[in-house]
Amino acid sequence: MLAALLDALAETRYRDLTVEQVAQRAKVAKTTVYRRWGSVEGLILDLMRDQTARRVPTPDTGDLDADLRLLARGILAIYRDPAVNTLISSVVSAAVHHPEARETLSEFFISRITDTAVIAERAVQRGELPADTDTVEVIRMLGAPFYYRMFITGEPVDEALADRAAAAAAAAARAGVLVHGG
Amino acid sequence: MLAALLDALAETRYRDLTVEQVAQRAKVAKTTVYRRWGSVEGLILDLMRDQTARRVPTPDTGDLDADLRLLARGILAIYRDPAVNTLISSVVSAAVHHPEARETLSEFFISRITDTAVIAERAVQRGELPADTDTVEVIRMLGAPFYYRMFITGEPVDEALADRAAAAAAAAARAGVLVHGG
Repeated sequence: MLAALLDALAETRYRDLTVEQVAQRAKVAKTTVYRRWGSVEGLILDLMRDQTARRVPTPDTGDLDADLRLLARGILAIYRDPAVNTLISSVVSAAVHHPEARETLSEFFISRITDTAVIAERAVQRGELPADTDTVEVIRMLGAPFYYRMFITGEPVDEALADRAAAAAAAAARAGVLVHGG
Repeated sequence: MLAALLDALAETRYRDLTVEQVAQRAKVAKTTVYRRWGSVEGLILDLMRDQTARRVPTPDTGDLDADLRLLARGILAIYRDPAVNTLISSVVSAAVHHPEARETLSEFFISRITDTAVIAERAVQRGELPADTDTVEVIRMLGAPFYYRMFITGEPVDEALADRAAAAAAAAARAGVLVHGG
């Protein structure tokens, strides 16, 4: 389905994309797509979730720095896969103009950062971070530099960027800057 | 010219945008646009630069935290202006698929962050930050959370986000995480 969706996206503007087109390319009945995913957005969300869950299991090494570094390296790995990179980039581009794409993207990222915030929650429990740390904000801080480079400045993302993003999020959290209401 | 460009963007896809369309809406001769800006991208770059320079003068209070907070509040002010927000968002969206938009956006942001890095350079000179601080990276770290929320998670940007982005960049820089080769 991912290949079929990407083929369709390569030829059609996001706003004109239909379940029929994707179903035809995947050689499945369109009722199958409707029954399983409901819409193009449902399919995209499912594919993004499937691809990231397979590639980036939430680390749990017992150490905040190591966990954040592994998470950052996982994000890097996702964007090095051309298919997943193209899929997410297309949705980011479409989200500026299309509310459905906006909603799909927000749902995907907010649930991802909420799920992975467990990394910071465990660090709070171990006493590595202040008790009132906004654990979701720690994950946002780690992710932001990737998207800033990819979609805004157009600068490369590499291992050095990933490790630095992880270290910066940890440092800001330890300094007590990423606390609730802060 | 900004209003004319935005009108044209509202009706035409970025890839189909022409100097003729913008000139017609601005009621100027297209040769005037060509002579002054060279292309649609030249015009966009000039407008982005003009709007941000007018709204966000580079602060110089003698204190790193205060300077970064002022810079972050300035970024917030830019995106609260619907016209400038629409312009930059359109270019971000187009940059995913169009090399000319990608180049324009990179040129704008890289020159902005290089110029404002003087804030961190002064802090290094005052001994507020480690001598080997990557001063451009301090500014990237401050900017990233805005774009992450606006274009990725779709979450709001407000004063609390601006102040937190500034404080996190300062904390990471002070911790020595944002150093050259780091």
